[in-house]
Amino acid sequence: MFNEFETCSIRQARDNISKMKIYETLKALTLGSGSPRRSELLGSVGLEFNITPATCDEPPAKRGQLPEDYAIEMAMMKARNVANLCPGTLVIGADTIVARDLDILGKPRNRKDAIEMIKSLCGRSHKVITGCALISDNGDEISYAVTTDVEFINCDEFAIRAYVATGEPDDKAGAYAIQGQGAFLVKGICGSYTNVVGLPLARVMESLISLKAISPIGTE
Amino acid sequence: MFNEFETCSIRQARDNISKMKIYETLKALTLGSGSPRRSELLGSVGLEFNITPATCDEPPAKRGQLPEDYAIEMAMMKARNVANLCPGTLVIGADTIVARDLDILGKPRNRKDAIEMIKSLCGRSHKVITGCALISDNGDEISYAVTTDVEFINCDEFAIRAYVATGEPDDKAGAYAIQGQGAFLVKGICGSYTNVVGLPLARVMESLISLKAISPIGTE
Repeated sequence: MFNEFETCSIRQARDNISKMKIYETLKALTLGSGSPRRSELLGSVGLEFNITPATCDEPPAKRGQLPEDYAIEMAMMKARNVANLCPGTLVIGADTIVARDLDILGKPRNRKDAIEMIKSLCGRSHKVITGCALISDNGDEISYAVTTDVEFINCDEFAIRAYVATGEPDDKAGAYAIQGQGAFLVKGICGSYTNVVGLPLARVMESLISLKAISPIGTE
Repeated sequence: MFNEFETCSIRQARDNISKMKIYETLKALTLGSGSPRRSELLGSVGLEFNITPATCDEPPAKRGQLPEDYAIEMAMMKARNVANLCPGTLVIGADTIVARDLDILGKPRNRKDAIEMIKSLCGRSHKVITGCALISDNGDEISYAVTTDVEFINCDEFAIRAYVATGEPDDKAGAYAIQGQGAFLVKGICGSYTNVVGLPLARVMESLISLKAISPIGTE
């Protein structure tokens, strides 16, 4: 069985050969997340960045706290943690959560929990929210939450069990990965797809452009 | 530079190691398309199928023909072509088109055309329509079109030029690939993501289940 690192290396090898830069990086950037999906998304346009995952614990949401507010709070907490570790760089922090109405779904505790979590999402819509926090080298902070509505099919329980048995849901908030085998569960989405994967690419790039941290290749 | 075959082999190697079946295939299936994206989507849930690309020419849309009708017509034409080549199997045909209002956008004629095509999609929404046609071994036919709205960012011309220079748009209807580097152009979508990639996975699986061609692993 692959581990995350090997999967990532093969992908990287393929991508490095086939990818040409679309944007160039003007300021030192740090991605404050160990997620290979976030790294792959930022890397897809040719950005260069260091990866320094945040080391802070994530407290649970406060009672009555809106999912969007919680996602922003977590992203900012991670970004500040990493900004202390990587002074002189622009830090990007992100936190992706799954919300069924006002309930925030974390990672499943076990496979039985994963089956129940997926069943609770079937035949209806839920929200995937990524909180983003950017801290520039001069201390300026930008933060926001991007929300995507995701609608699941009405899925047969046998298929849910077979999906959970693949192990993919084990470490995923909401117990599925839209970019993986979990795609079959998704009838449709409304909003940013990359946001569901873990980073709203277009919006984050808009922020990096406004901070003059990146610009298109060939710009004078 | 990679060719399509090499890209596909590496992906296949990675996927075969990490993927477990979610559905099993009960009838002989033929995918009537050479698109590695369609093959990867159907393969992601563990389906087994032969690949036999259609050999027929694709006529342009008739004057005044709705994009949805044209996509279904092309998918059915391909499926019938392949059904003649592969008797005794259930054939899946598909045709994905990009429509800006009522104009159908094909593949760009050259890189200048690709730049103009992407510019014409920026800052607004267009539709990606996949026509699907399934012909079962007893001759029954099912066909439909699935539509996804795609909204592009307002993109700087330098970034468009750099994206076109990657070569990715060369052979893509609408001059972009949402699953590739073109993801940075997409602000959001409404509808099926896999439909934009080339095959509306959830809908096609629903059809295959109704035709008793596939069923979840573990079903008695």
